[in-house]
Amino acid sequence: MTTRPGGRSARVRDAVRAATYAELVEHGYLGLTVENVATRAGVHKTTVYRRWATIDVLIADALDHARDTDWPVPDTGTLEGDLIAIADEVVDAFTDPALRAMPEAIVTAALHSQRARAAKRDFYAARQAQAAEVVRRAQRRGELPEGVDAVELVRLTCAPLYYRIFVTGEPLDHDTARRSARAALAAARAGVL
Amino acid sequence: MTTRPGGRSARVRDAVRAATYAELVEHGYLGLTVENVATRAGVHKTTVYRRWATIDVLIADALDHARDTDWPVPDTGTLEGDLIAIADEVVDAFTDPALRAMPEAIVTAALHSQRARAAKRDFYAARQAQAAEVVRRAQRRGELPEGVDAVELVRLTCAPLYYRIFVTGEPLDHDTARRSARAALAAARAGVL
Repeated sequence: MTTRPGGRSARVRDAVRAATYAELVEHGYLGLTVENVATRAGVHKTTVYRRWATIDVLIADALDHARDTDWPVPDTGTLEGDLIAIADEVVDAFTDPALRAMPEAIVTAALHSQRARAAKRDFYAARQAQAAEVVRRAQRRGELPEGVDAVELVRLTCAPLYYRIFVTGEPLDHDTARRSARAALAAARAGVL
Repeated sequence: MTTRPGGRSARVRDAVRAATYAELVEHGYLGLTVENVATRAGVHKTTVYRRWATIDVLIADALDHARDTDWPVPDTGTLEGDLIAIADEVVDAFTDPALRAMPEAIVTAALHSQRARAAKRDFYAARQAQAAEVVRRAQRRGELPEGVDAVELVRLTCAPLYYRIFVTGEPLDHDTARRSARAALAAARAGVL
C-alpha cells in the first residue's frame, strides 16, 4: 500500500478507527476481532494486521486519537459549577451504552496489554491536565488558594463515579455527580489537597 | 458424584476455589480455563463444568466465598486512623501481584458476565457495610455528626485509590492512601456527605 498524507492511508486509518468503535459498541472487548474490524472498515484484513497487529493496538490507537481530539473544558463561572459539569459528563457517558463501550474496553485491554495500558495512562493524564484548567481559572479569580493541587482536585471529583462504575457496580446519577464534586471541593478548601 | 456435607463435595469445592485463585494469579482472566482449573484441582473437568459451567461462575463463586469470610475491621482509636488503615489495605493489596490478580479478574469478568457482576456488587456492598462500622463507632464516640452517611465516607476513602488502579493507571502509595482518607473525612466534616 502506498501512503499519501491525507490520502488513502489516512482514509484507511479513519475507517479502521470508526470500525473499531462500532465493533466495540456491538460486541464489547471480548468480541472484538481484527477480522470483523477489517470487514466493517471495508479493508483487507492483512492491511489491518500489518498496521495494527492486535486488537489491543486497535484500541490504543483509537484512544490516542481521542486524546488528541479537542475536549471542551466547562466554563460555568464558578469552580463548583465547573466541577459538577465535569462529573455530570462522566455520568452521561456511562449511562449511554454506546459511549461506555469504549472506556469499558479500554479498562479491560489495559489489564492485559502494555500498549493499551500506556495509551490509557496518556489519555487520562491529558484529560486531567485539560480539566485542571477549571481549577487554575478559579485560583486566578481568587476562589481557591494557589497551593491546591489542581489535578488532584479533578481526580477526587471523578474518582467516586468511576469507583461505582468499575468497582462496586452501584448506580450512578447526577446527585452522585454533584455530591462527588462538592466533596472534592470541600477537601480542597479544608487544605487537604 | 455423591455429595456428603463436609465430605468429598466440600473438598472438591475448596480445591476448585483454590485452583481458580492460583490460575488467576498465574495467567489472569483471559488465561483462565475450566480445563486448567480442573487439572490443578485434581478434579475431572466434567465435574467442574457440571457445577460451575463457565469461568465467570468460577470467579463469582470465589468472590461469594471471599464475601462470607471474616474481614477484620480496623480499630486504631481514631476515625482518621481507621480510614487510613482501610486505605492502606487497598494500597497493599494492589501492590502485591498475587493479591491484585483476583480483583483485576473480577472487574474484567463483571464487564462481560451478569453472574460475575452480581457477585462483585454483593461483595463490595458487604465489605462497605463492614468498613462503615469504623464511622458508626466514631459517631458513637461523638467524633462525627450522626447525620454523616457512613458508607459514603468509606466509598470516598477508597474511590481515589481504585480510580488510579483501574482508570488512570497512576502510581499508588501510602501517601495517596493518607490523602484520600483525609480528603473524605474533610468532606464529611464539612457536611457534604
